[in-house]
Amino acid sequence: MSSFPEQVSIVEVGPRDGLQNEAVKLDAAVKAMLVDKLADAGLKRIETGSFVSPKWVPQMADSDAVFAQIKRRDGISYSALTPNMRGFEAAQAAGADEVAIFGAASESFSQKNINCSIQESLERFAPVCEAARAANLPVRGYVSCVLGCPYEGDIDPQQVADVASKMLEMGCYEISLGDTIGTGTPVKTANMLQAVLAKVPAKQLAVHFHDTYGQALANLYVALSMGISVIDSAVAGLGGCPYAKGASGNVATEDVLYMLNGMGITTGISMESLLLASKYISDTLQRKPASKVANALLS
Amino acid sequence: MSSFPEQVSIVEVGPRDGLQNEAVKLDAAVKAMLVDKLADAGLKRIETGSFVSPKWVPQMADSDAVFAQIKRRDGISYSALTPNMRGFEAAQAAGADEVAIFGAASESFSQKNINCSIQESLERFAPVCEAARAANLPVRGYVSCVLGCPYEGDIDPQQVADVASKMLEMGCYEISLGDTIGTGTPVKTANMLQAVLAKVPAKQLAVHFHDTYGQALANLYVALSMGISVIDSAVAGLGGCPYAKGASGNVATEDVLYMLNGMGITTGISMESLLLASKYISDTLQRKPASKVANALLS
Repeated sequence: MSSFPEQVSIVEVGPRDGLQNEAVKLDAAVKAMLVDKLADAGLKRIETGSFVSPKWVPQMADSDAVFAQIKRRDGISYSALTPNMRGFEAAQAAGADEVAIFGAASESFSQKNINCSIQESLERFAPVCEAARAANLPVRGYVSCVLGCPYEGDIDPQQVADVASKMLEMGCYEISLGDTIGTGTPVKTANMLQAVLAKVPAKQLAVHFHDTYGQALANLYVALSMGISVIDSAVAGLGGCPYAKGASGNVATEDVLYMLNGMGITTGISMESLLLASKYISDTLQRKPASKVANALLS
Repeated sequence: MSSFPEQVSIVEVGPRDGLQNEAVKLDAAVKAMLVDKLADAGLKRIETGSFVSPKWVPQMADSDAVFAQIKRRDGISYSALTPNMRGFEAAQAAGADEVAIFGAASESFSQKNINCSIQESLERFAPVCEAARAANLPVRGYVSCVLGCPYEGDIDPQQVADVASKMLEMGCYEISLGDTIGTGTPVKTANMLQAVLAKVPAKQLAVHFHDTYGQALANLYVALSMGISVIDSAVAGLGGCPYAKGASGNVATEDVLYMLNGMGITTGISMESLLLASKYISDTLQRKPASKVANALLS
């Protein structure tokens, strides 16, 4: 057997990446309550909001109110997505502990999603990185489409490695590799990670897998076996897939935790408390959690 | 990376293990139609029914009618579960190409499920194995609870290896290792398989994982990396978990196929045709498939 990390850090992206892709727009108070329940469960890194144009992402328009209403506690990093200086300033004013920028590993996706080339998108993020450095705020870099693109299909692992290493050079302390459309499978995951690891150390990488085709845990297992120890996930599997209606979104934090617990890997997260957060948000959205573990344990 | 089998044989257990655990009792014609659609999709091994007491498993009471109504074709093995001589004779009369016996790796489960010890259960199956040998019918052996028991919790991998090797000695040509309650995780799977592989060659092993906690594909990936090349699964993830209401049952054939396709492993199965079978049975049961792939691709 490969050797696995003894400890894994889970980055909870449900309140942002998850809720952003839910059809229902929730009140800031509900989102803040969700963040607090996730903190109760032991999550130390919680993506709390996004400071992007409300025209583009109406679900996140009140991120400042969410930041204002959470019961902040020590030792937890509440982060925010910041596509530009305006977003960065708003995130800083709201008290975000960390900010994130996002690029794509696919040219077509970059063009269709943010209307510029990959290179241009990185250049646009440069001032955010500089301002964050001046403000002493850590910057995380997201790379989307690392295992497939809705427009291009397969993505060259070298392309992923290039974008990831450029973000590292720009000052990101961690690069989160996103299988945005969930089409990755284990061998593809291994090949992609092998290419990225040649340029970026494992300690500065996270994986962010969507479970659209049910492959996320198998892929995560491969990533763990290759030394990755930071995993993004969303409680209750929040968020759908904008490219396949009715399909699932982020891999569920409960399902990831179940696997890690079973493998004897420490996370500091309580399944019991996590299920309370899962039940809270699922009840609010009036649907069953998109987590097999939650459905089995809450039944 | 480990080396994986170039080819995998999927044993479709939906019409038996799946439908047996669904609350709705379907007509024989519907079950036969499902079997035919699975054959259309390229599945070569289809568990078609069970010849057990209708008192115990009312859903399978009409297995002879199902066998009578399927459109048999060459190169496909239609199998049946046969707990005793009476069942064996009925299966033989119905024209089953293969029969299966089932034991548990957990003493408590054996006692509560079939009311005798593991050793006694194996002795009871001996005449079935002998009769099958005389009739030239292959016998498959199922071992349940290989990664956990609802009464005992963890199961000693040596116990699994012992039961598996005893079934092999009794004349089973293949042993299917079942994670009946779906609590297995990747490292546990590896440890269990390591113990079994010391006594039973990989070529005579199959894995049968339930996806109750979403772990099945990660566990299957581990099994593939250890040389296992036969996988049991159920179209549309048919079958619930009798120990956790509302929880999922067998791993979905679609999800397994998606992973194998992505890994470049040959199965001879058409995803497109498989989705027709998935849609047919899900529509009949008036619910969404318990398969992420089906939900994404049929959306």
